[in-house]
Amino acid sequence: MKSPEFFENVKAKAVANVFFNGNVVSHSIWDASGVRRSLGVCQPGTYTFTTADPEIMEITAGSVRAKVDGEDEWGVYGPGQAFNVPANTSFEMVVEGAVAQYVCTFG
Amino acid sequence: MKSPEFFENVKAKAVANVFFNGNVVSHSIWDASGVRRSLGVCQPGTYTFTTADPEIMEITAGSVRAKVDGEDEWGVYGPGQAFNVPANTSFEMVVEGAVAQYVCTFG
Repeated sequence: MKSPEFFENVKAKAVANVFFNGNVVSHSIWDASGVRRSLGVCQPGTYTFTTADPEIMEITAGSVRAKVDGEDEWGVYGPGQAFNVPANTSFEMVVEGAVAQYVCTFG
Repeated sequence: MKSPEFFENVKAKAVANVFFNGNVVSHSIWDASGVRRSLGVCQPGTYTFTTADPEIMEITAGSVRAKVDGEDEWGVYGPGQAFNVPANTSFEMVVEGAVAQYVCTFG
């Protein structure tokens, strides 16, 4: 399901999560039903993320190439497009050119 | 007034504001009374921001040096410390070493 432009009635953590020396940063929000999302911003680069919970990675700006560990194919994802990542695995994401942004939904 | 760890019951914009080629990014939130805040992350660097509304810039991580246009003194601000910026002016902010984060309250 495509993310809205605005998430209403959420709890937002004031301090961002900072990864890869600040090349990826995200702010965490929780909706009224407790679902956690992270609003992320990625500088150009190649990143490997690990997952605990299953994740839905939806690109909201820019474009990325991504591949989940164990899969053969890389996918290309732009705004409004998403890919699923199982729990307890990892995925690679390549951001080229412009800053990319995502909404990651956990669980 | 020091920002809480979590802002409750806010509206959050899914896509971040991206400044200075992605070296400064922020997510906008609005509380129930309509007050806008931006949760910002700054890479090391020197930045000049312009203001429309008055702003309260509170540092939530890292440390910055800042000077409002027209003032003589630079201030140094760390977590929990804030400086006020009048409307329709500008301020310089220098981030050295680690990524710095802020909560900017508008109006």
